[in-house]
Amino acid sequence: MGTTSANLIQILEDKATRLRIDSIRATTAAGSGHPTSCASAAEIVSALFFSVMRYDPKQPHSADNDSFVLSKGHAAPILYSAWAEAGLFPREHLLTLRQLNSDLEGHPTPRLPYVDVATGSLGQGLPVGIGIALAARMDKRDQRVYVLMGDGESAEGSVWEAAEIASNYGVDNLCAIIDVNRLGQSGPTMVQHRMDIYRARLEAFGWHAIVVNGHDVPALLNAFDDAKNTTGKPTIILAETLKGKGMDGYEDKEGWHGKTLSQDEAERVVGILEKRLTGEGDRWTPTLPEKRGERQAPASIGAVPKSPYTPGEKEVATRKAFGDALQALAKADPRVVTLDGDVKNSTHTDEFLAAAPERFFEGYIAEQNMTGMSMGLAARGKIPFATTFACFLSRAFDFIRMAAISNLNLKFGGTHVGVSIGEDGPSQMALEDIAMFGAEPNFTILYPSDATSAWAATMLAAEHVGPTYVRLGRPNTAIIYGPEEKFQVGKAKVIRQGSRDRALVVAAGITLFEALKAYDELKKSGIDIRVIDLFSIRPIDRETLLASARAAGKRVITVEDHYAHGGLGDAVQSVLAAEGIPVYKIAITEIPHSGKPQELIEKFGISSKAVIAKVRKVVEQSALAA
Amino acid sequence: MGTTSANLIQILEDKATRLRIDSIRATTAAGSGHPTSCASAAEIVSALFFSVMRYDPKQPHSADNDSFVLSKGHAAPILYSAWAEAGLFPREHLLTLRQLNSDLEGHPTPRLPYVDVATGSLGQGLPVGIGIALAARMDKRDQRVYVLMGDGESAEGSVWEAAEIASNYGVDNLCAIIDVNRLGQSGPTMVQHRMDIYRARLEAFGWHAIVVNGHDVPALLNAFDDAKNTTGKPTIILAETLKGKGMDGYEDKEGWHGKTLSQDEAERVVGILEKRLTGEGDRWTPTLPEKRGERQAPASIGAVPKSPYTPGEKEVATRKAFGDALQALAKADPRVVTLDGDVKNSTHTDEFLAAAPERFFEGYIAEQNMTGMSMGLAARGKIPFATTFACFLSRAFDFIRMAAISNLNLKFGGTHVGVSIGEDGPSQMALEDIAMFGAEPNFTILYPSDATSAWAATMLAAEHVGPTYVRLGRPNTAIIYGPEEKFQVGKAKVIRQGSRDRALVVAAGITLFEALKAYDELKKSGIDIRVIDLFSIRPIDRETLLASARAAGKRVITVEDHYAHGGLGDAVQSVLAAEGIPVYKIAITEIPHSGKPQELIEKFGISSKAVIAKVRKVVEQSALAA
Repeated sequence: MGTTSANLIQILEDKATRLRIDSIRATTAAGSGHPTSCASAAEIVSALFFSVMRYDPKQPHSADNDSFVLSKGHAAPILYSAWAEAGLFPREHLLTLRQLNSDLEGHPTPRLPYVDVATGSLGQGLPVGIGIALAARMDKRDQRVYVLMGDGESAEGSVWEAAEIASNYGVDNLCAIIDVNRLGQSGPTMVQHRMDIYRARLEAFGWHAIVVNGHDVPALLNAFDDAKNTTGKPTIILAETLKGKGMDGYEDKEGWHGKTLSQDEAERVVGILEKRLTGEGDRWTPTLPEKRGERQAPASIGAVPKSPYTPGEKEVATRKAFGDALQALAKADPRVVTLDGDVKNSTHTDEFLAAAPERFFEGYIAEQNMTGMSMGLAARGKIPFATTFACFLSRAFDFIRMAAISNLNLKFGGTHVGVSIGEDGPSQMALEDIAMFGAEPNFTILYPSDATSAWAATMLAAEHVGPTYVRLGRPNTAIIYGPEEKFQVGKAKVIRQGSRDRALVVAAGITLFEALKAYDELKKSGIDIRVIDLFSIRPIDRETLLASARAAGKRVITVEDHYAHGGLGDAVQSVLAAEGIPVYKIAITEIPHSGKPQELIEKFGISSKAVIAKVRKVVEQSALAA
Repeated sequence: MGTTSANLIQILEDKATRLRIDSIRATTAAGSGHPTSCASAAEIVSALFFSVMRYDPKQPHSADNDSFVLSKGHAAPILYSAWAEAGLFPREHLLTLRQLNSDLEGHPTPRLPYVDVATGSLGQGLPVGIGIALAARMDKRDQRVYVLMGDGESAEGSVWEAAEIASNYGVDNLCAIIDVNRLGQSGPTMVQHRMDIYRARLEAFGWHAIVVNGHDVPALLNAFDDAKNTTGKPTIILAETLKGKGMDGYEDKEGWHGKTLSQDEAERVVGILEKRLTGEGDRWTPTLPEKRGERQAPASIGAVPKSPYTPGEKEVATRKAFGDALQALAKADPRVVTLDGDVKNSTHTDEFLAAAPERFFEGYIAEQNMTGMSMGLAARGKIPFATTFACFLSRAFDFIRMAAISNLNLKFGGTHVGVSIGEDGPSQMALEDIAMFGAEPNFTILYPSDATSAWAATMLAAEHVGPTYVRLGRPNTAIIYGPEEKFQVGKAKVIRQGSRDRALVVAAGITLFEALKAYDELKKSGIDIRVIDLFSIRPIDRETLLASARAAGKRVITVEDHYAHGGLGDAVQSVLAAEGIPVYKIAITEIPHSGKPQELIEKFGISSKAVIAKVRKVVEQSALAA
């Protein structure tokens, strides 16, 4: 570059001014956005993009680049401005900010090649950054990860989950920066500019913490150097800044969050900023990373053995088969990693730990961070299985939502679903997990009923590219399928059928066994029913459902160990209701209680008795109508 | 009591031994549960229940009692044992633990009169405790609140959200205790017994922190005294303990989480414990609280003015009407409190702040804690409105789930729903909130479409007893209803109808206006449709939907600004599908993008055009079929 250190500082100050100008212009053109939140971060972003980070501006997604996560996603315009300034696209394109036909959205999404994970829900960048840092460590890449946070978001608990886990894993290739601009959206933050409080907190959580003036370029460069030289622990740079810094008349001023300047005001403020430009900024050239080649990941998972379970032999829980399958996957594919929320001995993911300890991450009781780490790992080519009791995945719903927006290739395994867990009681029962994952339109949802299909579901989840949820039960259940049985995403199984079926019962998981009991009982009294093991809740097997419903006289009953709204029944109904085929849902309709599994299945009305009663009723009704 | 201090210590040690014995016996009888997690807390619980806390054992829910929250809910047996020991019910009843016909469930629920809020999902007790402590402060009751946490749960971010907020509000009537027994479910915790780390963290978060040996009764009593004498900040007692303490052969031993002793082992271990009993414990008498009378809360909300909006006048957003209504409620009912996640200037809850600052709690960007505080406030007779952008309520789903299990009288106001927010992009759009709240079977869900109905929905939410969600939009919209219009929970409005309607369109919120546009357009081409403003998603107006569907030829279309699974369409379908009435859902089916609200409504297929096309199609199809 031929730059002296004085030159470098001038370059970076010029770039910071340029970032401010571009952020103001873009938000004013859009008529919405957060120019003051960009302005406080201008020197930080300038130092990172134009001195600290090693990256190829023409290959923004290269695995060799240092990585940047904008956790304060509302400052998106400064991120876009930095990439324009680095030469990835023309500056004029910034004026398309927030338009339908532009991928420069209000908050960053991975539609852009330089964004790993969507941000805009605060407090998510740090967990994601840990995942990216761990992926680099696993791949032995000399990649550093920078996460820029706002100060307001430090109130989010997920930040402290990440703070503890990052230091626990000693991810020293991770450097976070808090842009401490003192002002939240609707008022000052709790800590404001009391920088010592931030320092004490982060140090207590095991970080190397550095307090700097966030508008002082040499101080920032020193801090980033210090971070690079710190081993064994992550570093946080606590940058004291002013919101609206450099925007004449708007510095450190309340009431200017998420507000744009009028055209006239923008030109006035930009005019003042432009006078500060020295031209030195144009002398910047990028620092390219060492080339290590793209990730050498296989295109598909390796050969895995057939499932080891045999119909008629001893009962096995689907969660156990999940653990067994993960262990097989550990050996078959180096991309597969598993994360746990301190229940590995219940979810059986300890089997993965035994097989591949270097790819197992204990996430402790911190489900948001576990999910965020998975998001970072998935963004960097790993196939993470985030696993815990399904009810506690609800803790991470906002992360799951952002993972869906990011369309990441991550997997969730949720165990201990429904009232069939028994004695632990309602706090441990997942009864809303299908509603949660099902709402996200791009999630694949598999719900195996026996060990063989649970093994298959786990393999299919690993193979399928895209966000996937596998729903798993606690009790041991009979083996229905032999190891030769083929399962597919999007395919249901008709497991009982005759030539004159009077009703169709659709079930999955524990209720499939209730449906089978109902089949046997009804058969004794001369009523044949057809039984479907739904297996794949999304995509749903429309063809099989429709054909079976028609073959069974258009009388359909669903039965599930889940609350009535947003569950399996609604998924089936959405296929059949538009065809005018009646669907009778049997599901949990009240808050359950502790008890023995089978007692609860009876008490809360999802047993074979409930199925039999409903079948009799709809068959009688249609006989009367005929 | 006539006790000397030496006597007192002997009493408490006896009680602790008794609690261990009872916890072991109960879990062994149940065949499941967590005896070792009870044993580590025995001296802490003994000190609290038999010396520190002032309460009437015969009136466990009295508002004068000091309050106890068992955040580590899996230690439920020791809580039940303490109340048995205090004389509320016979010891034998403990042996019904975890049975279907007993309310001594696996984890505590408010089915028990001495439980305010269900626990069992870790990390929730501290936020709840803040709410209870704030309620006591508002009521000027000299009530102290004790929250017993496990050490594993300190990994949950919600604990740190609560830690920051509790010190920010200076709730010095709150005392938390961490039972630092070193062992989680599946392995040691991250911090183990490094007590100085806990101390440094809590002190950095503004707490008075005291480290003690958690099995040393005099040390515990001193610590609780110290807590009582601490003003201006909350206190945390960091109690170093051993898991399984006092259980011969099980102390500090890995692999014994959530495992019960065999009958023989239980008797052996209990035999050893019984030898330690001195009989002093039987000399205990309770310390009754000062009587201040029960809460003087009104039975219903006070008189509120009619809504101030007039059809045909300027457009008003439903979120604005929500803020206006909350302001009116602030004046009408002293029980109403409002909580915000640093977006009060967007949700318009700043109007409540202006009217009743002493009942407004800024929750900052920490939605889990905001919800937990609301749970505590609701448990103590307040009517809390927890409010933020609806998408960020997903952050609190696990708390919402536990609030449902607790059947609390709390209210959520979620604003900025759907693609109609526009430019901010998908991260800020709530498109899964109906699925989330709707899954919980006891939540009432109101979805007003204009300012008048939003005002009414807010009033109805305050009046209705039970958990309630109000769904609110960002854009300004026309006023449909005049101030005389009556709204009811569970009642829809037929707002367009004729004598020969060809289809029924059901909508709410922004899509109601699209349905009305479709009505006008279709009318021009000679097709009459019926239009329903659903207003109440749960309870749903089955009668009106069925009658209208039949009157409109059993052709029903739903249209909503929400994802397709678990939304308004599924709620309508669940009423009509069992009657064989076809329902065609129009909803968001892919991840959206930034853009102008109306552009997005068009692009993502929920506009009047989509409604018109669907109506034409179903009308044509049925004409062909006829």
